[in-house]
Amino acid sequence: MELEEKCVKSERIYKGKILNLRRDIVKLPDGREASREVVEHSGAVGVVPLTGEGQVYLVRQYRYPIGKVTLEIPAGKLEEGEDPLDCARRELKEEVGIEASRWEPLLTFYTTPGFSNEVMHLFLATELSKKEAQPDQDEFLQIVSLPLEEALEKARTGEIMDAKTILSLLLVRYKFTGRAYPLLGEKP
Amino acid sequence: MELEEKCVKSERIYKGKILNLRRDIVKLPDGREASREVVEHSGAVGVVPLTGEGQVYLVRQYRYPIGKVTLEIPAGKLEEGEDPLDCARRELKEEVGIEASRWEPLLTFYTTPGFSNEVMHLFLATELSKKEAQPDQDEFLQIVSLPLEEALEKARTGEIMDAKTILSLLLVRYKFTGRAYPLLGEKP
Repeated sequence: MELEEKCVKSERIYKGKILNLRRDIVKLPDGREASREVVEHSGAVGVVPLTGEGQVYLVRQYRYPIGKVTLEIPAGKLEEGEDPLDCARRELKEEVGIEASRWEPLLTFYTTPGFSNEVMHLFLATELSKKEAQPDQDEFLQIVSLPLEEALEKARTGEIMDAKTILSLLLVRYKFTGRAYPLLGEKP
Repeated sequence: MELEEKCVKSERIYKGKILNLRRDIVKLPDGREASREVVEHSGAVGVVPLTGEGQVYLVRQYRYPIGKVTLEIPAGKLEEGEDPLDCARRELKEEVGIEASRWEPLLTFYTTPGFSNEVMHLFLATELSKKEAQPDQDEFLQIVSLPLEEALEKARTGEIMDAKTILSLLLVRYKFTGRAYPLLGEKP
């Protein structure tokens, strides 16, 4: 069965700062037409900065779309044509004030393929050294450092609810211990 | 430090079928103003339908926003005021043509708190029985059944790149075997 949908007409609804929106008319595999809403996003990176003592740096910030203060791994939006690793280095330096000598890609995934083209690139940053943070003018952040296990426990209890953060903490935990964190079960 | 951003003015940009868009002016903690783009989404569910033989049902579909055919767990959008579990039952029946006697919540998370309020509820569905699928008029789907281990292998190799699918497969694998899948490493 053919699954592809072909664009018949594209309407630009909005061109913004962090996203664009368009509504396309597509031709379905059976020849009928349907509309598709697409949030265009330039892609993003997330970084797990891990110290030699097993501490991770997380960012506490107000997320206006959900109206809550969240605890997330440092992350940021790719600039036009920017290499994901360069972006990860930049965000870690700006947001957290940290440089890392060692970088490893963890995973690349689509956050919401049903309505957006956002791609997220996750990295692990180790061998860290402290610099000075320079967050964006309109970013208000608190940097929190805590043991990786404690961060995972916050994911288990629902205090951390951000997809990229949960996924990357699980991956890093497994990478370093060879064991999964029982996110669904009792406190380990 | 106070982190909250307060809405000063809200502008409705678009009201659509699967999402709305607004642009708000907010007051930052330091009193200055900034703009925030918010994709409003009613929330969604994802279901891992797992047979007694350890097979999962996945959906192959064309995701127009990313221009690719993907392999994902069955999922769908919450209707206004709908209970997530009711929605999960409905989507599993409609998309895959399956009913499940046993339902367990896996995890609830925000997919993209930086620009959207979408909440995703993941469920595990077991004790399955086959009914007839009734996908939406404009949904073209292929149902694929494969061993959970094979699905995870597709996440490891990058064939599965959808965040909710990767996360839920990892959680279900751990739940049933007590062992993590080495997503970052060599084939197990």
